[in-house]
Amino acid sequence: MRILLQFPEGLKQNAIEYAKELERKGHAISLSASPCFGACDLAIDEALAIKADKIIHYGHAEFVNAKLPVKVEYQEYPIAADLAFIAKAKKELKGIKAVALATTVQYVQLLPKVKKSLEKFGIKIRLAKGHFAKYEGQLLGCDTGAIANVKGKVDCVVYFGAGMFHPLAIETEKVLVLNPVTKTVYWITEEIMRFRRRRRAMLIGALEAKRFGILVSTKIGQLNLTGALRARDELRKRGREAHILVANYVDSTAIKNFNSFDAFVNTACPRLGDDYELFEKPIVNLAELGELLNLIDSVKNK
Amino acid sequence: MRILLQFPEGLKQNAIEYAKELERKGHAISLSASPCFGACDLAIDEALAIKADKIIHYGHAEFVNAKLPVKVEYQEYPIAADLAFIAKAKKELKGIKAVALATTVQYVQLLPKVKKSLEKFGIKIRLAKGHFAKYEGQLLGCDTGAIANVKGKVDCVVYFGAGMFHPLAIETEKVLVLNPVTKTVYWITEEIMRFRRRRRAMLIGALEAKRFGILVSTKIGQLNLTGALRARDELRKRGREAHILVANYVDSTAIKNFNSFDAFVNTACPRLGDDYELFEKPIVNLAELGELLNLIDSVKNK
Repeated sequence: MRILLQFPEGLKQNAIEYAKELERKGHAISLSASPCFGACDLAIDEALAIKADKIIHYGHAEFVNAKLPVKVEYQEYPIAADLAFIAKAKKELKGIKAVALATTVQYVQLLPKVKKSLEKFGIKIRLAKGHFAKYEGQLLGCDTGAIANVKGKVDCVVYFGAGMFHPLAIETEKVLVLNPVTKTVYWITEEIMRFRRRRRAMLIGALEAKRFGILVSTKIGQLNLTGALRARDELRKRGREAHILVANYVDSTAIKNFNSFDAFVNTACPRLGDDYELFEKPIVNLAELGELLNLIDSVKNK
Repeated sequence: MRILLQFPEGLKQNAIEYAKELERKGHAISLSASPCFGACDLAIDEALAIKADKIIHYGHAEFVNAKLPVKVEYQEYPIAADLAFIAKAKKELKGIKAVALATTVQYVQLLPKVKKSLEKFGIKIRLAKGHFAKYEGQLLGCDTGAIANVKGKVDCVVYFGAGMFHPLAIETEKVLVLNPVTKTVYWITEEIMRFRRRRRAMLIGALEAKRFGILVSTKIGQLNLTGALRARDELRKRGREAHILVANYVDSTAIKNFNSFDAFVNTACPRLGDDYELFEKPIVNLAELGELLNLIDSVKNK
């Protein structure tokens, strides 16, 4: 079988061992060398170009519901972790009655054990499922439903995992991180507040923009041309200039070469704006467009 | 009509005026926001994803012969230039009897006039057509046939144009540049020799490599999976490890995340290796593979 293997950036270092193993079984293997940022980001174009029979996409859980022109097999990549360090959380969670617990897909199989460890502190643990997630308690870069869906029923959030990408978008201010890599426990309330202020600043920045670029990604789990056209038309109705910009991977250098955009509306990955420093312009997500339009209208009517 | 406009990096700054003009005529316009590096680099995937009826590809001449899944209209982008500065070349070309004259597609319409100006110095001008070129005297990043095809019949090369990308790959050492942007005239013999030494060093570097990545681009004018598989098999026959890496745009960061390649064989744009510093490893073009294999064999048989 001709198979294209696809790995997210953090797992590419292990890719070749998987390729060799599958070759030993008699398959013809190629590796996708494009950046891969999530379950939404399937190497469909590469698979079609080399006429692959199948993509094996490692490290993420099922996500895309669209009918795919090539077979995709998701191979999760569970990572083991010693949980003894969770004892350190007892002191931090003193006085807390109920928490929302969440993690990323590679640790999701550990959640029952993490839950038990926390319950020993006499805390009620609530797990919920996000809209795009496969598992209860699973966070995606674009979906914090695992937490949003228990809002009001908990005193704080406990995030089990490493890195800032996933927990940054959490809507609750109080987030305690249990980091299985460093085996440390710490609050990231400050970072979350800073992230929100930055998003707010981008919205205000976009308010003054004359010329908008509407970003559309062709990644099969991100493509939203309808949303982009709506954004364009609504902005034009309000006297702003707006143009549709289409790419697979939205490259800041290519975007900057267009030279004269004042701000962007992003219909692709909602976390693209995290790299706003590369784009050097405000980036507003489609989900925030309504708020932007209201701001524009209210300024106009003053 | 739903049209996707595609501009190379240097022309993206003018893209929006073209978009507006076509919208005034009633077309639905989107802009490709991907990097575009040549006539080989058509935004087919973007066009299919947004169901465009046509791509208008600016700044390059026809190149791709493959049957395309979407209509492509090439719009060249001729740039005017004052030719008076060519008089400065007289001194430099003293004693020269015949030259090969070449330029890039945006100046190709000026070649008859440039030719006349040079003929006034009593020099014979030879023009030839490269394999992938549309016009006589036209250089492409991957095709210096305009010069190679008159090899032995000229004393030196005259390149009319700006930038180093196109003239660097010229096989003749003696190249006089007539630069219409700076209105200056200068030899780039030294730079060409340095470029060649660098290519040679990469070949020698690759000789010691244990693990090769074979780079394949899905760009419709660059895709060469057959060549890649041949390269892989020939290297494996010689006891080297080799794996196929497929991407549209070959991104050095993603490639480096694979972590353990010692060298690359490049079956995509032969100028990709110009960015070898980004890849931090030797990159050998498919056209140089035979030489590499001979080197490997000769070292082995010693």
